[in-house]
Amino acid sequence: MGKSKGYQPDWSEKVPEKGSYRSVFKWGAPDGFKHPKSKMYQYMKDQFGLTDDDFRTKEFEGREQVAIPDKPSLIDKKHVEAITKIVGSENISLSDYDRLFYSTGKTMEEALELRQNLIGDVTDLVVHPRHTQDVSDIVKYCNDHKIPLYTFGGGSSVNFGFRPTKGGVTLVLNTHMNKVLEINELNKTATVQSGMMGPAYEAVLNNSKKSHKTKKNYTCGHFPQSFEYSSVGGWVAALGSGQESSYFGDACDIVMGVEFVSPKGVIQTHVYPATASGPKVLDMIKGSEGCYGVITALTMKIFYHSPETKYGFSYVFRTWEDGVNACREISQGEFGFPGVMRISDPEETAMGLRLYGVAGTPLDPIMKVFGYKDGTRCLFLARTCGEKGFAKNVRRKAKRICRKHGGMSLTKYALSSWEHGRYKDPYLREDLNDYAMILDTTESGVTWDNLHALHKGVREYVKSRPNTGCLTHASHFYPGGTNLYFIFFCKMNDMKEYQEFQTGIFDAINKYGGSLSHHHGVGRMIGPWMQEHLGDTEMGAIKALKQYFDPNNIMNPGGNMGMDYDKSELKDHNWRIDWKKHK
Amino acid sequence: MGKSKGYQPDWSEKVPEKGSYRSVFKWGAPDGFKHPKSKMYQYMKDQFGLTDDDFRTKEFEGREQVAIPDKPSLIDKKHVEAITKIVGSENISLSDYDRLFYSTGKTMEEALELRQNLIGDVTDLVVHPRHTQDVSDIVKYCNDHKIPLYTFGGGSSVNFGFRPTKGGVTLVLNTHMNKVLEINELNKTATVQSGMMGPAYEAVLNNSKKSHKTKKNYTCGHFPQSFEYSSVGGWVAALGSGQESSYFGDACDIVMGVEFVSPKGVIQTHVYPATASGPKVLDMIKGSEGCYGVITALTMKIFYHSPETKYGFSYVFRTWEDGVNACREISQGEFGFPGVMRISDPEETAMGLRLYGVAGTPLDPIMKVFGYKDGTRCLFLARTCGEKGFAKNVRRKAKRICRKHGGMSLTKYALSSWEHGRYKDPYLREDLNDYAMILDTTESGVTWDNLHALHKGVREYVKSRPNTGCLTHASHFYPGGTNLYFIFFCKMNDMKEYQEFQTGIFDAINKYGGSLSHHHGVGRMIGPWMQEHLGDTEMGAIKALKQYFDPNNIMNPGGNMGMDYDKSELKDHNWRIDWKKHK
Repeated sequence: MGKSKGYQPDWSEKVPEKGSYRSVFKWGAPDGFKHPKSKMYQYMKDQFGLTDDDFRTKEFEGREQVAIPDKPSLIDKKHVEAITKIVGSENISLSDYDRLFYSTGKTMEEALELRQNLIGDVTDLVVHPRHTQDVSDIVKYCNDHKIPLYTFGGGSSVNFGFRPTKGGVTLVLNTHMNKVLEINELNKTATVQSGMMGPAYEAVLNNSKKSHKTKKNYTCGHFPQSFEYSSVGGWVAALGSGQESSYFGDACDIVMGVEFVSPKGVIQTHVYPATASGPKVLDMIKGSEGCYGVITALTMKIFYHSPETKYGFSYVFRTWEDGVNACREISQGEFGFPGVMRISDPEETAMGLRLYGVAGTPLDPIMKVFGYKDGTRCLFLARTCGEKGFAKNVRRKAKRICRKHGGMSLTKYALSSWEHGRYKDPYLREDLNDYAMILDTTESGVTWDNLHALHKGVREYVKSRPNTGCLTHASHFYPGGTNLYFIFFCKMNDMKEYQEFQTGIFDAINKYGGSLSHHHGVGRMIGPWMQEHLGDTEMGAIKALKQYFDPNNIMNPGGNMGMDYDKSELKDHNWRIDWKKHK
Repeated sequence: MGKSKGYQPDWSEKVPEKGSYRSVFKWGAPDGFKHPKSKMYQYMKDQFGLTDDDFRTKEFEGREQVAIPDKPSLIDKKHVEAITKIVGSENISLSDYDRLFYSTGKTMEEALELRQNLIGDVTDLVVHPRHTQDVSDIVKYCNDHKIPLYTFGGGSSVNFGFRPTKGGVTLVLNTHMNKVLEINELNKTATVQSGMMGPAYEAVLNNSKKSHKTKKNYTCGHFPQSFEYSSVGGWVAALGSGQESSYFGDACDIVMGVEFVSPKGVIQTHVYPATASGPKVLDMIKGSEGCYGVITALTMKIFYHSPETKYGFSYVFRTWEDGVNACREISQGEFGFPGVMRISDPEETAMGLRLYGVAGTPLDPIMKVFGYKDGTRCLFLARTCGEKGFAKNVRRKAKRICRKHGGMSLTKYALSSWEHGRYKDPYLREDLNDYAMILDTTESGVTWDNLHALHKGVREYVKSRPNTGCLTHASHFYPGGTNLYFIFFCKMNDMKEYQEFQTGIFDAINKYGGSLSHHHGVGRMIGPWMQEHLGDTEMGAIKALKQYFDPNNIMNPGGNMGMDYDKSELKDHNWRIDWKKHK
């Protein structure tokens, strides 16, 4: 089998078999796919020392039926009976498939494990609570009997945020607790159950005139890449940021109040636009990732649904520095923010122009003529939000700043192409995994003065491994800085090697002064770095609240957020499968 | 002595005598005064059953020299020696005057007490630390020896926030720890010592081109009414809101990081524009009012100093409902906020138009003709901030909304008049107190849907007392709501009666669903309501952090934030002077 210029891999379009491992780990809709465009495929081969031969034979597709005889449910029958009494028998499951499904998030490692039919930690009992009272009763029961309790919202965690390391019970919130309880148009808020998924929530708000007799239609303002497979409660519990966060704010800015069940009892935090009544318990719950308790409902800010003021534009800059400087000037311009803002570094730009179909269009030679060279040029995408005059002023000012920094307008084409695919990019992972390529991401919050050092430091580490891609963009903007989102991929099929590689990435982020996570949360993946990152005193404060809300450590126990690590155990990733055993 | 139409009281313009009680309690600059205008004086008499006779004889001016023989310093000599060893003898004081001065905030009760030479709690030792190391050494020493420790920032607390209920040591931060450490123009932040006072901080930022070789000049964006007499650390520790908060955000939004000394050690929180690394310890420190430790330095967002885009405008509305509706529509308009927004209710408008000198001008009859009647009309003041195009759009949109709700433009006059006096209004209190009139304020955060109920509920309570003024405005705006700021005054010279009256106000706020405090913090005054207001579980979380940071309860002990009350002791204001004893 020699090189064949026209060869395209046989990207899978097969819906995963019902009951199969693939149906557990596949991202998104069973029949949803997004394949590398031919230009992107060619580019990957050119850049990363691959040939068509690397894309001929799929391995470990995970099409086998789930069967986990060596992971029986270990929960005592009397507990199952007691919990069944609370929720009804139709709302519990002990089946292998359900237990595995609701124990599995969306890390690349989990996908790779399941492709090889290797099973990590599996919950003992799946429960679908119907309402807050069920959750409260179950938390109380589990606390009384010291049964570990995990919460599955949308299941999109990319850091083992709900992996049932200690077994026990997993609460699934999106089955029943998935409704908008109230739209309060006076306060411009919606109160929503925590298990409601992004699209359903947004659909209610977009059509609230009809369904809720509101005067206007609304939007939730929070559109993470996981939007379609994440829940409103998860957004707040894991401190998510949406793709239009620069305008709407992060999840922590959008939430105004929560209903929260912990072993200590049920809280409904007051909903105030602001209050000076001491440290805010709402702030302590934000980002607690199920370690203190379960968010059951939330009062969220909502925004006018005004697609007509979403003016898109895109620019290309000659260098990363030019692009970053323009973004900084926009972010500090005091004229408000565009919703979408996204600047890609040269490597991501090269890929992105191929992914978004700009490469090969008439724009390409024009860019070259004017000095926007492949390898140094950077793509910037933006789109406004908000009231018309505001949005127009933002566009006017932002465009002027882009031109000042040498940007060349690329029209709306690249933006529209990104927008069209913005929830679809994760589907690419399946294609690459099918051919034993690894694709993973991580991200970090960083101040402007440290951005280049962090970018350089992480890239140097990643690129020290031969034939490894490292695409970076910044996509959430604040006056004081932004985030860096790193996407890395390479041919690799040794899990142990991968884990070491990933460890090095977090080490580099920590070393170069980035936040350990900007919007992915912490989970068990980053947990081991928390104590060192925050220092003993800050980590102690987070643990003191854990001790208060959950003295028996039943809520999401086993390494999440580094909460129940001993310092001596740090970086001993004891929740991971011991891959050496399987070699 | 009969009525005399032209009579004006002999408002005091005498600088308080050095060493006098008056020099301790007088608001603001020793030679700063602001007297009621004659129209306001007349209005007060008309409305509140007063005559000129009530304003003929001053009493309890507090001009006596401070002498507190019955309150000797009780601190052990060995502790004084040890602390002197840390800071140097020039940085401690045991004098009566200093001990009283640094124990005294700006509540009305403290002023009234001192006018009668009655002394509440007095610190045993005043210490002026030079730097963080001093603070750290003192906190450690006091913790080792279980000595209560209080922090005096600017001294403007209006709720006994640093009253040394348990005696001990008071740290004065504004003596030495009052400098800007860094202006980081890339991040648009300043790092400042916590004891720096508002005007000094603002002056450095306004002139940073010269002093710090920055490219632009900056502003701090935080202008509470106490601006001139409050410290940057105090703004964050007590969750302040500035008069332009609608645009700049509250203190909790402006701070990005702190250096913080507690018995648990020194923390420097990471400075990130955003992070998803678990619950944020910075958020736990915000609003902790010295109960967890001492903020020694802060990294704050800064903003461009652009007075040229501060476009002022003002409107009068026919009714409170019209005015509130207009403010709500502006706040929810998604075009950004004016900096200043302030709507006064009918009673405050009546007073305000007299205070700001609009009453009696040609505007007055014009208003009447068009149905803006004294007694129902409401005054709205606004002024923009930010980039020029942004500010113009805000003005354009806001004015359109005002007109839509029946507002009549009053030109910039009222705004300018307010602006001119905005830090001076508190001086009025001295004049009224001199004639045994009480003037006090409180405020509450509230959602739009509850605003009228809260306004009505608190007013009903206050107005149930004959001849009592109750002026209300909203001046901090958010999409979800605003604050209500209540000013009440009456002839009253029985302290016990006043305390009961004030208790009723907090009861009303709590009953009608307002936040206990919007931007005054909690202190010892509101502390007794905290447990009931937040509920046991939330209050327990705040106390769990107290237990963690300060296990020996040395930091601001004795009732602050209701922290070391037993539930059984609630509302037993044991830190107050027992006025019955003095009758």
